[in-house]
Amino acid sequence: MLSTTPRTTLGRKKHRAVTDRAVLHAVLDDGLICHLGVVRDGVPLVLPTGYGRDGDTLYLHGSTGAASLRKASEDLDVCVTVTLLDGIVYARSVNNHSMNYRSAVILGKAKLVTDADAKMHGLKVLTDHLAPGSWEHAREVNAKEFAAVSVLSLDLAEASVKMRAEGPDDEADDVGADTAWAGVLPVRTVFGAPEPSADLSPGWVIPPHVTDRE
Amino acid sequence: MLSTTPRTTLGRKKHRAVTDRAVLHAVLDDGLICHLGVVRDGVPLVLPTGYGRDGDTLYLHGSTGAASLRKASEDLDVCVTVTLLDGIVYARSVNNHSMNYRSAVILGKAKLVTDADAKMHGLKVLTDHLAPGSWEHAREVNAKEFAAVSVLSLDLAEASVKMRAEGPDDEADDVGADTAWAGVLPVRTVFGAPEPSADLSPGWVIPPHVTDRE
Repeated sequence: MLSTTPRTTLGRKKHRAVTDRAVLHAVLDDGLICHLGVVRDGVPLVLPTGYGRDGDTLYLHGSTGAASLRKASEDLDVCVTVTLLDGIVYARSVNNHSMNYRSAVILGKAKLVTDADAKMHGLKVLTDHLAPGSWEHAREVNAKEFAAVSVLSLDLAEASVKMRAEGPDDEADDVGADTAWAGVLPVRTVFGAPEPSADLSPGWVIPPHVTDRE
Repeated sequence: MLSTTPRTTLGRKKHRAVTDRAVLHAVLDDGLICHLGVVRDGVPLVLPTGYGRDGDTLYLHGSTGAASLRKASEDLDVCVTVTLLDGIVYARSVNNHSMNYRSAVILGKAKLVTDADAKMHGLKVLTDHLAPGSWEHAREVNAKEFAAVSVLSLDLAEASVKMRAEGPDDEADDVGADTAWAGVLPVRTVFGAPEPSADLSPGWVIPPHVTDRE
């Protein structure tokens, strides 16, 4: 079960909170980017970045700027949020319009991964999430690149999931009046046809780990 | 031109920053949800929420919890980020894998909209963004609903846009080696077929503002 500390209890509409670790993992695995929140000079800063999950550890690229915010002697308070928008909910009243979505919010301290093996593992997890199959297909990380990149890890201990996955929740009077359409317009994220690089040599067939991605 | 204060200068890869207000507006108009960052108890909190833009004002639903964080006597420091993921960039090396994206980051103080006309205008802007046409089609906001909802406004004065929209940026040695495929897998957000509510009375035709949405 997910912890439900006051920090991850998101106020109103608590019925939409989910406390199942498998659901948390599924949301994180379905997302492609996260939004990383940090506090800088006392105000919030939210930046999009890639991530990857292994068990109950989330890895983040340090190149987001978060690493530079982290003082050498301490970990960095972060909030990582992954949101999947699933539909626009058209209700019979303007007020009851809504969205179907799945959202994971993780609070904790991001740690700089310094152990070389752990850092290389983090890079593999990040690559497997961004581009499954590329870790095996593409040229591996060399020593110079490895030194230049930083990886942050975040424990999934303090996390919450909220979701809405239903039709419009209209007032009985509005249903009876029957003066407006109601339903859901699904929203999906899809991949298009792969576009080979302009400088790719002739004869390349697009590899299965790209063509078969869903 | 967009301001480029130190706060919205995002560190490395500054060549990806865009300082054109039309581009900012386009990113905000293309997005469906934003990620709202606030500071709570000294740590960041990032929540997904709907928004809408009118000129250089962004409107947010107060129901995100942000309104409750705002002390009655002062405005709330927020960061609002809208990210559109456009593609996965497969490079010849693991290290040069990347993403094509457009991202807007707005910093400022969110103000509670209290004037009744301005608040109703904010609700219309929010509705027009979430579900264009619904403001005219669905039952209007009544007095009770109007009193229960809160609207926040945020000036777009301090904002930045970053984007990447190109093929892989590989090392010359990797291009020459020609041992891996390189290209872009486009990512798109699309609408599916509208799903009428289970309790919709027979005979309804799905209205054009839903079927024609792109």
